This record gives sequence, structure tokens and C-alpha cells, in this order.
Amino acid sequence: MKENKIVRLKDDIKLNNPILLVGLPGVGHVGKLVAEHLIEELNAEKIIEIYSPHFPPQVLVNDDSTIKLVNNEIFSCKANDKDILILTGDHQSSSTEGHYELGDLYLDLAEEFGVSRIYTLGGFPTGQLTHTDGVIGAVNNHDLIEEMGQYGIEFKEGEPGGGIVGASGLLLGLSQFRKLDALCVMGFTSGYLVDPKSAQFLLGILSKILGVEIDITPLEERAKEMEKIAAQLAEMEQQQRQGQQFLPDTSSDEDLRYIG
Amino acid sequence: MKENKIVRLKDDIKLNNPILLVGLPGVGHVGKLVAEHLIEELNAEKIIEIYSPHFPPQVLVNDDSTIKLVNNEIFSCKANDKDILILTGDHQSSSTEGHYELGDLYLDLAEEFGVSRIYTLGGFPTGQLTHTDGVIGAVNNHDLIEEMGQYGIEFKEGEPGGGIVGASGLLLGLSQFRKLDALCVMGFTSGYLVDPKSAQFLLGILSKILGVEIDITPLEERAKEMEKIAAQLAEMEQQQRQGQQFLPDTSSDEDLRYIG
Amino acid sequence: MKENKIVRLKDDIKLNNPILLVGLPGVGHVGKLVAEHLIEELNAEKIIEIYSPHFPPQVLVNDDSTIKLVNNEIFSCKANDKDILILTGDHQSSSTEGHYELGDLYLDLAEEFGVSRIYTLGGFPTGQLTHTDGVIGAVNNHDLIEEMGQYGIEFKEGEPGGGIVGASGLLLGLSQFRKLDALCVMGFTSGYLVDPKSAQFLLGILSKILGVEIDITPLEERAKEMEKIAAQLAEMEQQQRQGQQFLPDTSSDEDLRYIG
Amino acid sequence: MKENKIVRLKDDIKLNNPILLVGLPGVGHVGKLVAEHLIEELNAEKIIEIYSPHFPPQVLVNDDSTIKLVNNEIFSCKANDKDILILTGDHQSSSTEGHYELGDLYLDLAEEFGVSRIYTLGGFPTGQLTHTDGVIGAVNNHDLIEEMGQYGIEFKEGEPGGGIVGASGLLLGLSQFRKLDALCVMGFTSGYLVDPKSAQFLLGILSKILGVEIDITPLEERAKEMEKIAAQLAEMEQQQRQGQQFLPDTSSDEDLRYIG
Repeated sequence: MKENKIVRLKDDIKLNNPILLVGLPGVGHVGKLVAEHLIEELNAEKIIEIYSPHFPPQVLVNDDSTIKLVNNEIFSCKANDKDILILTGDHQSSSTEGHYELGDLYLDLAEEFGVSRIYTLGGFPTGQLTHTDGVIGAVNNHDLIEEMGQYGIEFKEGEPGGGIVGASGLLLGLSQFRKLDALCVMGFTSGYLVDPKSAQFLLGILSKILGVEIDITPLEERAKEMEKIAAQLAEMEQQQRQGQQFLPDTSSDEDLRYIG
Repeated sequence: MKENKIVRLKDDIKLNNPILLVGLPGVGHVGKLVAEHLIEELNAEKIIEIYSPHFPPQVLVNDDSTIKLVNNEIFSCKANDKDILILTGDHQSSSTEGHYELGDLYLDLAEEFGVSRIYTLGGFPTGQLTHTDGVIGAVNNHDLIEEMGQYGIEFKEGEPGGGIVGASGLLLGLSQFRKLDALCVMGFTSGYLVDPKSAQFLLGILSKILGVEIDITPLEERAKEMEKIAAQLAEMEQQQRQGQQFLPDTSSDEDLRYIG
Repeated sequence: MKENKIVRLKDDIKLNNPILLVGLPGVGHVGKLVAEHLIEELNAEKIIEIYSPHFPPQVLVNDDSTIKLVNNEIFSCKANDKDILILTGDHQSSSTEGHYELGDLYLDLAEEFGVSRIYTLGGFPTGQLTHTDGVIGAVNNHDLIEEMGQYGIEFKEGEPGGGIVGASGLLLGLSQFRKLDALCVMGFTSGYLVDPKSAQFLLGILSKILGVEIDITPLEERAKEMEKIAAQLAEMEQQQRQGQQFLPDTSSDEDLRYIG
Repeated sequence: MKENKIVRLKDDIKLNNPILLVGLPGVGHVGKLVAEHLIEELNAEKIIEIYSPHFPPQVLVNDDSTIKLVNNEIFSCKANDKDILILTGDHQSSSTEGHYELGDLYLDLAEEFGVSRIYTLGGFPTGQLTHTDGVIGAVNNHDLIEEMGQYGIEFKEGEPGGGIVGASGLLLGLSQFRKLDALCVMGFTSGYLVDPKSAQFLLGILSKILGVEIDITPLEERAKEMEKIAAQLAEMEQQQRQGQQFLPDTSSDEDLRYIG
């Protein structure tokens, strides 16, 4: 697979002026938690799968021992008569160049579906273990600020000071070239753990923006599961790292020291 | 060499509905041990060599001081009247993108030979130094589970929790796009050492699946040699790492700090 | 975005034999400080924005909560009747190959505008915390040395001994293929901090070369702000690094260890 | 510069069955020391310069403050009526893929000049600080062993156990595809320092092979200079590494953690 691969699960999708929500893995997994919760609660239907050589060479194992090649996916649903697309997935790009390439791929799809606005969802690392309710925003069009401030999204001068790294930010930047409105909404989170509380608060604000009721009870459980998976992966990675030091196949770009 | 290079050692290969076994370097080198053992015991014939710029820039030195450019290789044999292809090699891809590219290359060859099923062989790191007999499986088609369970392959809910990283998993995922049945069979192993015991147990199960007797006596010795090579490489790498800090040629992508 | 993207903000730019000043991020941020200061003081006008998949996938957040996709930019101004182009930006390339690709892109633009000479501005790390006034130079055409020595630029035998890494040096090298004169001017700096003192001294020399008066009072403040941003980014990065160890999305090329 | 660039300094080069010596940076810089010494002592003439986006984005600074873009170079000379080509340079490739690409580029040139045999020169890290005279060899054609053994090159069963990493080994492997004889000759060296003693011994053997007298007196001095440069670069790199932690421009692939 040398190229990104878009698998369309449904023909003839007609959407009326939809918005796109993007919740990919990231700080506190806040964006992904929110996206997965919305997909469940709004009975969103998967319409597109995206595979890419810029994702890690990895499959996940389902409960029934079948596998799933890591990917990103787009779901579609109606909420309060509005069409909503939700982009979520297992990973962001493994490489800098892949981030840009996938970013444009997502926006090509957004344009194809006539998306009128993009909300990227993420976490804002406070570095503090005690939870504070709060959501901070950044926009690619100043006109959005007044409207969005009404829903309780805070806009703080020049925050986050280090900018926004990854798809959440990049999509705002790349959208500008297409005159597509986009904002990034980040829930306060410690930055250390999968954070359902942050996701809960962010969901509250989103439900106001979307004008729909969303049950947030199942969120805690979803977060626990996500954390379990994360822990397993971390453990496995550590085991491997230890194990690999005795094995001759660990060559990677950074091990390019010459013999001879 | 900008492109992968396939060297065909034999013309006019006609196989009848063969299966493909994949045993590349990985955790405990279980898959590679099994693959190399089968090649030896079943007198498999090398039919294809695969070279790639995604493998490390390295040659191995044979006992007679000739060299071998690192590669992956496909062998062919008959066992109990069945045609079997075995893919093994020195390395997996050094880069994420290369993993996907090589994965498709392997599957192109599998399709060309009319492969009906793929078994990828690997190790499942338990993190525990005491050996436990056991083999865990994952499939890309649920129908395979019942059949395979008969041979003692365990299918555990959602295990391995962190998914399967590298060619063993990726080939299952990429095979789905071709409607090609594939399963990954992983022997329990500590994760810390080249593990002939794990390979032995996995071989026992494979011999039942393939319906052939396989002598496992030489396996221990093969593992010792592999471990020796692994240790030598590790030592050499460490020497180099120390040596290189005094040398001006260690620039790599991650050292891109600017002067000036 | 698979390719670099050049956004032209102004049509029909006619410049008479302009020079190009290049001040990108680097040691002590000396080059960038000088470039930004000149842009401000000389009321330079932005004429070109350059976006690239070789820059990090990052947006910066402006004071008004709008974002800016990281880029490099070219400004144009007149000083003492001379046409001056100034190239500055948020980042240098993230990859080796990107450095070469962007280097040629900058030189293509330089040739298009008829640039007659390039000055790349940077810092020379002394490793000593006490500041020393001084500017060291390197050239891609020996004829420049005599002229430039008059302005107080020191040329020391074989210094810097480790060469010049990054755009400041590379542009000198790539310019040789185009018979374009280029020199690198580096202000002494500790190498540990954003260094307005070094920038100040370098500006003094540049003002003599350009034959213009430049007010250096606002420089100190500009440096403080730059340092604040740098500190915020560093803090955020550290928080993330800690946070990410619990999250399953940290896969990068260097984590390519195989399971299975 | 997206592609490798070959600059030819001389037209109409006619060589009669030349051999190619390759001495690039590597363990103990033995190969590079030997190559540079031969170039000097045999008055070899530079005929080709090779530039590549796979080399670090770096220029070196000459004693007269002019710069040199890092490259690889091919020199030509006659020794005892034999035509000899010598390939040396500042760096090996920064990336895995670049190693393969450059390897083929070198072999294309070798074929163009009608090279009949390639000697790659390197160091064999013993890990021991006390010097031992000795040279170990590996070949890509078994017929070479008997001839080469006469000159004191040792061929030890399966040594080096970890194979040969980098251009020295890769060129042997890639030459096989062209039916071009190649051997790698490695002088014993600690692996920790630029090693003129190892180069001296290797030169002694080469002078027998080439049938020419080579004065090795200037070698010690050359090694000292090379070590000085190496030390300067290392120091500079360390300063930068420390300095960069306060600066916002250190983003590289491995720092791709997401905010937002």
C-alpha cells in the first residue's frame, strides 16, 4: 500500500450542509472520547474508512479475535435535523509529511460532502492533576469567536502559547486555503491520563452547539476501557523494548551507525 | 536501488492452491525460528529473493567470508502433497511506509501463486521468564476460528490487547482488501530472548495443521546460533554507539539541530 | 498537502537588484530576532508565504485566538534606496530531505526576483554564558571577504570547526550551483538562550552594510516575548511527553518494534 | 535539490580497467583516512562531486572562510600504470533509503568507468583500546579470497558476526546484481577514536595490492586534524542540544506528540 486508501461503505450520500466533528487520539484522548461517545449516542453510521501507510503497521484485535487494520473512519448521523459527520480513528499520522497529506485528504472529503464548518476536538494539557471544568478554543476565522463564546468556549489571548500540534490544529490551518471555517475546541485536562471528565464537559458544550440532548452516563465506562487498552499497549511496548535489545532486527533510521 | 527488487530463481512455478507461512524476525524470534526450521526439515527450495531500500543498509557475512545483502526470501516445498510457501528474512521494514509497501508486495506474490491462506507466525510476549506452552491466534475472517481452535490455537477475547505490530499483523489487515484468509499464530514467549521452546510448541501445532511429521531436535541448536548472532550484533552496535560519539558522521534525522 | 505551497500576496513585484536577508530559527534565535526586527523597523511588506509538509504539523495561536499555520515568509522593503527581501519563519525543515528541497525553493524565488547577494543570519554558539560582542562570517565566494571584513565581520581560519548546519549554511552551498554570492553572518551567543544582545550587535553591523539607521531599543522586548513563547512550548512539550506515556497514540518511526 | 546531483569536473575520462577504492566516514574513520591519504600521496585528481538530499544539510568551512557543501567525491590517479578511482566524502547517507539510492549511483559511475573491482575500506571495532595490527576481509565473490589472503587480509568464519552496516557493506551487496567483484577490507580498531595506526596497517596491505610505495609519515598528522574536527563538531552538537531545549524550533519526527 503505497497510497492512502479510501473505502466507501455507502453510495449516494447526500448531506445538507453538514458539519464535521474531528476527534482523533491526542492529549487525554479527550477528542476521541467525545467522538466515540457521539457516534454511539447518535447512532451514527460508518460511511468511510481511511487506511494509510502513514499509520503504524498495526492491527487491533477485536473481542472475537478478528483483527482490524488501524485506520481513521468517518461516521454520519442526523442530530436535530442537522447532518453531522464525525471523523475519529486509531492513530494520527506517524510522520510529519503524512500529517499534511492526510489533512488534505480529510478536507477533500469534507468539501465533497459540502461541509460548512469543522470542529476539531482535543485536550488542553494543564499539567495539574486536579480537574477543572473548562474548554478553550481557537479559530481560523475571527467571525466564529463571538458565536462560539456564547456556548462557554473560552478564548484566551494567545493560548495555547505553544500552538496546537497534530491534526486538531493542522486542519484549521489547511482549511484556510479552502475558505472553510474551522475551530478547535480543547477541554482542560491534566495531560497525564485518559480523561472522561474533560470529555464530559466538552460534550456538554457540544450538545448546546448541536442542539441535542446527549446522555453522558456511559462515558465513564468508555474511558475506563480506553485506558485499559492504553495501559496494555504501553505494557506490551515496554516488554518489547526490553525483549528487542537481544534481537538483531531492531534497526531503524536512528540506528544507522556504520560498521566497516 | 530506489525500488524493491524481486529476484526470481526459478521459472514456471506451478503450485496447486498453496498456503503461505510467514516467519519474519520479531518477538523471541519465534516466527523466524519456526520458518527456518520448516525450510530445513521440509527441504524447501528458495524460489524468490526480495531486496528493498526499506531494509537496513547491511550485509551479513557468511561462514566462508562471502556476504549476503539482507533480504526476505520465499521458499517452496511440498508437505503431505500440499504446496507450501514460506516467507522469512533478515529484517522487517525499517520504516512505517516500507511496512505497508512490502506488505502489498508479499500479497501480490501470494496472489500470483494462488495462495489460499496465509499463516503469519510470531511470538506473544508474556513478560514472564518461566515458559508456558501456548499459542494464541487472531484471524482476518471469523470463519477460521472454529477450524483453528481444533488444533489447540487459543482465541482469547481481545488479546493481544495492544494489537499486533509489524508484518505479522499487517499482512492480516492488508489481506482483507483481497478477500484472502489469513491468521496470525503467536507462541507464548517471555519477550526477552530468542525462544526455541516457544517455537517448538508452535511447530507442534503447525505439524498437525499441515499433517506432516517434523523433527524438532535440531531446533535448540538453531536457536543457540541465532542468539549468538543476535548477541554479536548487539555488542557491535554498542561499541559503535560509543565509538561514534567521537566521530563527525553520526548525523541522522533526529540530530537536525541548526548551527548558524 | 503533498507539495510545498507558495502563496503570493502581491502581483507584479519589480525589484532592482535586491539583496536577500535570511533569518530563520536557530541557535540563540539570533537570525530570527534580527530578521523580525528589520521587518518591523523598515516597515517591510509581506509578499510571499511558504507552506510545506516538511514543517511540523502545527498551528500557532494569535492573540485574538485565530490561528496561523506554521510557515516561512518573505518580506520586501526599501532601505536607503536599496531593495531588500527578508526571509524568516516559524521553523526550519523537520527532515534532511526537506532542508534541501526548501533550500532550492528559496533560491528559485531569489533568482526570480533577481537577488544579487544573500546574507544568512545566525548565531555562533560559544558555550560561554558571558556575552562577547562579535560576528563571524563564512562565504561561498572568496571575493566577499575583503569587502565584508571592513564592516567588522571576523573571518577566522576554519571556523566554525563543525561547519554550519541548517538553512544558514545550506543556502550558501546551494547558491554556489547558481553562481549566486552568499555569506553567513553569525553573532556570538552562548547557545543556551534567546539572545537579543547578540542580535543587537549583528544589527549594528548590518545597518552599516545596508547604510541605514536602525533603532535597536525594541529588540530587548521582542526577545523577551520570543523567549516566553519558547518556554511555553517547552513546558507544553514536556507535559505532553509525560502524558503520552499513558496513551496509545505515540507510535512513531522509532517505535517500530514488532509484536507477533 | 530533490535529486542527487553529479557534478563532472572533467570531460572525456578514459580509464583502462580501473579499480575503485571506497573510503567513507565510519568506525575509527579508518576508510576515510586511508582514502584521503592515498589521494594526497598519489596526487589523485578530483573528477566528480556528488551532492545529495540524503546528506545532512550542512556546509563545512574551509581555512579561508569559504564553505563547502558536504558531498562525496571521486578522484582518479594512476599507480604503477594501473588506473585507480577513489571515492571518499564527508558523510554517508542520513537515511536508510538514501543509502540504497546512493549505493546504486556509485555503482552506475563505476560501471560507466569500466571498474573491474571495488575495494571498500573500513574499520572493524574490536572494543579494545590497545591496538592490534590486523585486517579482516569479506567478499562478494568467493574467488577473491585466495588472491586476497596472499596480501595478509584475514578471512575469519562468519566475521564480523553482526554483518557490515553502511556503504562499505552495501556496495558489496549491490555489486552482486551487476556481477561486479567487490571486497570489504577492515582494519582492526578500538571503535572509539579516529585511528591512524589502523589506517597505517591497512595502507601497508593496500600498497602491496596496488604495487606502489606509499609514504605513511603524514598519516599521523592527518588523523590528528580529523580528530580535532570531530571533537569540535561533537562539542558544538552538545552545545546546541543544550541550547535548543529553550528554543521552539527543535521539532523533528520523533517529537510528533499532539496537542489539541
